[in-house]
Amino acid sequence: MADQIASNVHWHEGDITSEHRAKLLGHRGATLWFTGLSGSGKSTVAVELEGVLSELGVLSYRLDGDNVRLGINKNLGFTAEDRTENIRRVGEVAKLFVDTGVVALSSFISPYAADRDQVRVLHEEAGMDFIEIFVDCSLDVAETRDPKGLYKKARAGEIKNFTGIDDPYEAPSRAEIHLHSDQQSLTEEVDIIMAVLRERGIIKA
Amino acid sequence: MADQIASNVHWHEGDITSEHRAKLLGHRGATLWFTGLSGSGKSTVAVELEGVLSELGVLSYRLDGDNVRLGINKNLGFTAEDRTENIRRVGEVAKLFVDTGVVALSSFISPYAADRDQVRVLHEEAGMDFIEIFVDCSLDVAETRDPKGLYKKARAGEIKNFTGIDDPYEAPSRAEIHLHSDQQSLTEEVDIIMAVLRERGIIKA
Repeated sequence: MADQIASNVHWHEGDITSEHRAKLLGHRGATLWFTGLSGSGKSTVAVELEGVLSELGVLSYRLDGDNVRLGINKNLGFTAEDRTENIRRVGEVAKLFVDTGVVALSSFISPYAADRDQVRVLHEEAGMDFIEIFVDCSLDVAETRDPKGLYKKARAGEIKNFTGIDDPYEAPSRAEIHLHSDQQSLTEEVDIIMAVLRERGIIKA
Repeated sequence: MADQIASNVHWHEGDITSEHRAKLLGHRGATLWFTGLSGSGKSTVAVELEGVLSELGVLSYRLDGDNVRLGINKNLGFTAEDRTENIRRVGEVAKLFVDTGVVALSSFISPYAADRDQVRVLHEEAGMDFIEIFVDCSLDVAETRDPKGLYKKARAGEIKNFTGIDDPYEAPSRAEIHLHSDQQSLTEEVDIIMAVLRERGIIKA
């Protein structure tokens, strides 16, 4: 990214801000908050979007169960209280990424509207973009997909507090983007999101 | 960073990895873990380093009390147990930054060796660079500086569990970098760190 190799570069212009970082990266940070049932296709869209952004030189990072539930939130379970704290922490981490200039792709069921709204407020109070993406899909379709075999286990009672089975999913009422993963192609879904990122000026038009 | 404006770019090469992101950024991620007494100069060095890195086009981000204690760790206090959880969470956040390709500058007193070592192990297990930077400074000098007036309050008993007063500071025994902020200039300190970043190939030589 830079070829300067002087060993005695100094800095006298005060703290580096998110504006400096956005200039360095060529784009702003933003949180894209994917929410939807297990099996709705949140991660599938996020992975595809991540690839498309990378091709365009946009730095993004996916926050999901694999790197959060096993890391910063490994001391949390799936009770309502722990789910709330899980989402709160993810929201705070996402804010740090936005401040860094990264497009954070958060992919969690995040079934409770109040928890998602709390993350939205945290972002909006800081003047940060929070784009809620409802990956909508009927329970029937999600349960038929059952990519991880979790619905089967939940139906058998082997998993408790499973969203859609014995725990509620509160659909967003004001999501910025409403995808229908049982009707749209992956390409269509990604194009819709990319259009919003361009409209908002997060990435170059 | 990129001028491609096609709206239908697609991605078919699997998940984006930290290698993809390092290529996009032109440098690797790493955690620089500043530890030392309150007033030892951790943040001063981190701020200066951040500026120098930015001038070189290197994306870094400071994790400190201002953005962590008021955010992700706002539900933690200063008991030994809470300090441990504070450092654990910061370590996990730093790992996410390293995975993103960012040079994470963590600036916390982090007084307990076991807590710092836990973060080190987390990084080393993941094959990530963890560079412990001991910002060494005598208690006398730190207390004389007292930039936030905290020592005065601790001596007056208005703050409990204050490191160096009524809570221990366990100095690192194997820090990668040992700075002496009461003897070295800021420029010298930053040059030492930059040399290590170059030697390790984290940033271009």
